[in-house]
Amino acid sequence: MLKLFYAPHTCSLATHIALEEAGADYSTALVDFASDEQRSPEYLAINPKGRVPALVTDRGILTETPAMLAYVAQSFPAARLAPLDDPFAFAQVQAFNSYLCSTLHIAHAHRMRGRRWADDESAIAAMQRKVPDSVAACYALIERDMLKGPWVMGEQYTICDPYLFTIAQWLEDDGVDPGRFPHVVDHRSRMLARASVDKALLDELAAEDPL
Amino acid sequence: MLKLFYAPHTCSLATHIALEEAGADYSTALVDFASDEQRSPEYLAINPKGRVPALVTDRGILTETPAMLAYVAQSFPAARLAPLDDPFAFAQVQAFNSYLCSTLHIAHAHRMRGRRWADDESAIAAMQRKVPDSVAACYALIERDMLKGPWVMGEQYTICDPYLFTIAQWLEDDGVDPGRFPHVVDHRSRMLARASVDKALLDELAAEDPL
Repeated sequence: MLKLFYAPHTCSLATHIALEEAGADYSTALVDFASDEQRSPEYLAINPKGRVPALVTDRGILTETPAMLAYVAQSFPAARLAPLDDPFAFAQVQAFNSYLCSTLHIAHAHRMRGRRWADDESAIAAMQRKVPDSVAACYALIERDMLKGPWVMGEQYTICDPYLFTIAQWLEDDGVDPGRFPHVVDHRSRMLARASVDKALLDELAAEDPL
Repeated sequence: MLKLFYAPHTCSLATHIALEEAGADYSTALVDFASDEQRSPEYLAINPKGRVPALVTDRGILTETPAMLAYVAQSFPAARLAPLDDPFAFAQVQAFNSYLCSTLHIAHAHRMRGRRWADDESAIAAMQRKVPDSVAACYALIERDMLKGPWVMGEQYTICDPYLFTIAQWLEDDGVDPGRFPHVVDHRSRMLARASVDKALLDELAAEDPL
């Protein structure tokens, strides 16, 4: 059985949703960022990068969201989460997800994780000031050129959708006016109407605030 | 025929090498960064991101190195550049390349491209100061956990190899002591002995300094 190590409000949600969509048999394990559990020796033995997500499989452990999403799509072909038999169309999916991880998510990360790239406080504050602009520039490109609608790749729902949805959850906190990006906001609403998204979000919420 | 838009000393070299390895029928087109050609209307019509690489195919244009590398591997299966029939092994390849684009290349980019993430000069200088540490931290993980040897994935050469080689070309300029990472440096030498690498590097050199 697959086991997803995740933390709420992080990009691990994308894989969580994809596992739901795939109908996979999986469990989840919360990594408690509040107690810095991601840097504990126990967790570093699972993912030496000290980050989420990580996916334990019977073959070994996978990390990196684009790779994990493609793995879910390829392992559960009946769910049709990617165009598996068309190298060009598959590359388009991969290109979108690669843009999210290496450009949009990175622009966003300069708000909370500036310490990765500079040590002094004034530089970290300068990074934070630029986040609304740099994140909005990514969404401008997504809105205009990338998001075909109703899903990212057009009529067919793919592994691009949960990934965009996950990152688009952070729009407002990144200081971006959602009114500038109606297609992105519509996509977010469309995703919220899916049972898989509801299930993944509720699972994460329940683990975070146990009754 | 495929056409690769590239610039010397950028990550487009990875796809250039992969096209050579695949025995693809392709041409190259230099994008002149010195004259800011990547932001010209002509080039933005090819790649609205204003970056290299971009790969023109008969189906359309692809961007993003990890996606383009997987496309080359899937389009030329006889070259055996990725474990195409094994979702787990393919995901390991993808995870490595995803780490390069979203973590190592990003750490490196704070040396020359700080303006993407901050506006003021002192912040940009602070980012540059941290590059030797943040880049070295990535190589420490690659050296210890990721690079299996002799190739990234072990005995089988894959699309991870040209990508690592390309970025490892920048080690010294990033202020990292190569003596700390003997496996990475050995890998770089091993790559330099391949005819495909020689060919791609000479092509780029000839275009840059036409006689």
